[in-house]
Amino acid sequence: MENKINIAIAGYGNLGRGVELSISKNPDMKLVGVFSRRDPKSVETIFKDTPIFAIDTILNYKDKIDVLILCGGSKDDLPVQGPEFSKHFNIVDSYDTHAKIPEYFQSVDTPSKQNNKVALISIGWDPGMFSINRLYGEALLPDGETYTFWGKGLSQGHSDAIRRVNGVKAGVQYTIPSNDAIQKVRSGVRPTLSTKEKHTRECYVVLEDKSLAKEVENEIKTMPNYFADYSTTVHFISEEELRKNHSKMPHGGFVIRSGSSSKENNQVIEYSINLDSNPEFTASVIVAYSRAAYRLSQKGDFGAKTAFDIAPGLLSIKSPHELRKELL
Amino acid sequence: MENKINIAIAGYGNLGRGVELSISKNPDMKLVGVFSRRDPKSVETIFKDTPIFAIDTILNYKDKIDVLILCGGSKDDLPVQGPEFSKHFNIVDSYDTHAKIPEYFQSVDTPSKQNNKVALISIGWDPGMFSINRLYGEALLPDGETYTFWGKGLSQGHSDAIRRVNGVKAGVQYTIPSNDAIQKVRSGVRPTLSTKEKHTRECYVVLEDKSLAKEVENEIKTMPNYFADYSTTVHFISEEELRKNHSKMPHGGFVIRSGSSSKENNQVIEYSINLDSNPEFTASVIVAYSRAAYRLSQKGDFGAKTAFDIAPGLLSIKSPHELRKELL
Repeated sequence: MENKINIAIAGYGNLGRGVELSISKNPDMKLVGVFSRRDPKSVETIFKDTPIFAIDTILNYKDKIDVLILCGGSKDDLPVQGPEFSKHFNIVDSYDTHAKIPEYFQSVDTPSKQNNKVALISIGWDPGMFSINRLYGEALLPDGETYTFWGKGLSQGHSDAIRRVNGVKAGVQYTIPSNDAIQKVRSGVRPTLSTKEKHTRECYVVLEDKSLAKEVENEIKTMPNYFADYSTTVHFISEEELRKNHSKMPHGGFVIRSGSSSKENNQVIEYSINLDSNPEFTASVIVAYSRAAYRLSQKGDFGAKTAFDIAPGLLSIKSPHELRKELL
Repeated sequence: MENKINIAIAGYGNLGRGVELSISKNPDMKLVGVFSRRDPKSVETIFKDTPIFAIDTILNYKDKIDVLILCGGSKDDLPVQGPEFSKHFNIVDSYDTHAKIPEYFQSVDTPSKQNNKVALISIGWDPGMFSINRLYGEALLPDGETYTFWGKGLSQGHSDAIRRVNGVKAGVQYTIPSNDAIQKVRSGVRPTLSTKEKHTRECYVVLEDKSLAKEVENEIKTMPNYFADYSTTVHFISEEELRKNHSKMPHGGFVIRSGSSSKENNQVIEYSINLDSNPEFTASVIVAYSRAAYRLSQKGDFGAKTAFDIAPGLLSIKSPHELRKELL
C-alpha cells in the first residue's frame, strides 16, 4: 500500500471507539489520532498506541489529516462542529436527526465548497444504508410500497423512559419488529401499517422493591407516546441478569420494497441487518465512506454529499478493474 | 414533466417486453419504439401504440433516442451490438457472462468514449444489484465472508437438460437455496460452502410414457455436472399441471455478508429478492439505470460504466433535495 489515508476521530464515545476498531481492519487507512474534549491523559483508547490530543489543538494537525470523522451527537455537537470543521477538513459524520437533514446539509455545504473540502453527512445505517435501500427500492419498482422495520434493537430513548419510572432501579427496552407484519409485507400484499403496528416493545426491568411490580408494569404500559399505543411486555429481572444478558447494544432492521412490474407479477426486495453492536456497525459504515470522501477530495469534487451521491465503487479498497473482475 | 427521456429497445424477447412495461411505470420516460430483427409487421407488442421498426433502420433515429436499451443475449447479440451501437447511442445492457465482463467492458469503452456516449453494461440483478451488495458487504465489513444463494428460481439451462432425457415430454427445473445453509450463514458462523452445498434442485417432469418413470428419474439424478452432485428431487406431473403451475419465470436469491467488527461482535447484512418474473425485474433495473445513463451523458461523463460506478441518487426520478428530505 503506497500512501495510506490519514484519518482522525473527533469525539470518543461508543461511536469513536467503533471507528478506532474499524480503521484497524482497513489496511489502506491509518489513524492519526483521537481528538477529545476530555483531558487526553484521562482517555483510554482500545489500542495502546492510538495518539490522543486535545480537540482545541486540532488545527495544528490540518496537514496531517486527510479525513476527519465526527463522532459527536446530532443534537448538540454536530450542528456546531460540522459547519466549523468542514472549513478545514474533509469530514464524515452520522448526523441522524432525519427532519433536520436538509438544513444541516446546507450548513456544511457552503463552508466545505468555499474551502475545497468534502463533507459527507448522515452516514450509517439509518440514515445511510437503509436510506439507499429505500431509494433503490422505489427507483427499481416505482409501482410499490416501502416498509422500514427497526429491531430487534436496544432503544436508548425508551430505556431512559423506563428508568425514570418510580420504583425502577435499572432497565432496558428492545424494539421488536412484528413478525406478522413482516410476513404480510413479504407476501406482496402491500398492507397499510403504522409504526406501532410494525413493532412491539419488550422491557427488562430491575425493581428497587419487588412489591412494586404491579404498579411499575402498569405505569410503563400506559406511558403516553412511549408505550401506551404499543403491545408492550415487561420482564422483571435481577441486577446480575441485566448486567450479564443486556449490556450489549444490538440492533437491526429491515427495508422491504413490495411492488409490481405488471398486473400479473409482484416483486419483493428486502434488505436487512442483524447487529451485535449498533455503534460498531455504524462506525464500520462511516469508515468505508471515509475512503469515498478522500477519493472525492482527490478528484476535486467538493461540497456536502450524502450516501445518495456516492457510487458503490468508491467505498471499496479494490480498483475498478478488480471490482469488475471479482465482484460483478 | 418538462422533457422526457426518450428510450428505445433493441431486441424484443422477454427482456424487451419487460422494458416496455417498465417504461410505462416511469413518468419521466417515453418509449420511442422497439427495434427488431423480425419483420415489424410480425411483432406483437404489449401496448398497442408502441412503434416497431426494423433494426437496420435504427441509425435514422439517432437524434430521437436518448438511451438505447440492448435486450439481446450475452452469447451472440451483445458482443456484436455493444461495440457497434455504443458508437452512436448511449446504451444500457444486461451482459451477464461474468467471466468475460472485463473484456466486454473494454470493447464498449473505446467506442463510447471516442463518440461521447455512455455505455452502462451488465445491469440487472446478477450481475447488478447482487454485485452492488457483494461490494457494500465487503467494504462495510472487511473482516468477513460473502455468500450468494440463487433461487427459488427457474433455471433455463437445467430445464433444457431435463428435456433432452429420453422419455421426457416436457419439464422445468427450479434451483432452491438450502434453508439449512442460509440459517447457518445468518447465525454468523461463516461456514465454508460450495455451490452444491448451498442449493438443491427440484424437477417437474411430464413423461411420454408413465412406465418410464424409474429410468427417467435415475437418468436425471445421475446426470454429470447438472444434477449428480446435487440433492435432486423429481416430481412427475401432467401436461396440464405443468402449463398451469409452471409457466411463470420466478427467481430470486440472497447475498449475505457475515463479518466481525471486533472480537466480541458479529454483524450480518442480508439482501434478498423474491421475483414473480425474472425478466420483468431485470428490465425494471435496466430502466432505472437508463435514467442514470441519460444524466451522465448530460454531464459529459462518457465511456463504459457498471453498476459500481453509479451513485444511487442518479437512479431516482426525484431531485437530490427531495431525496434528502424524503428518503434519507
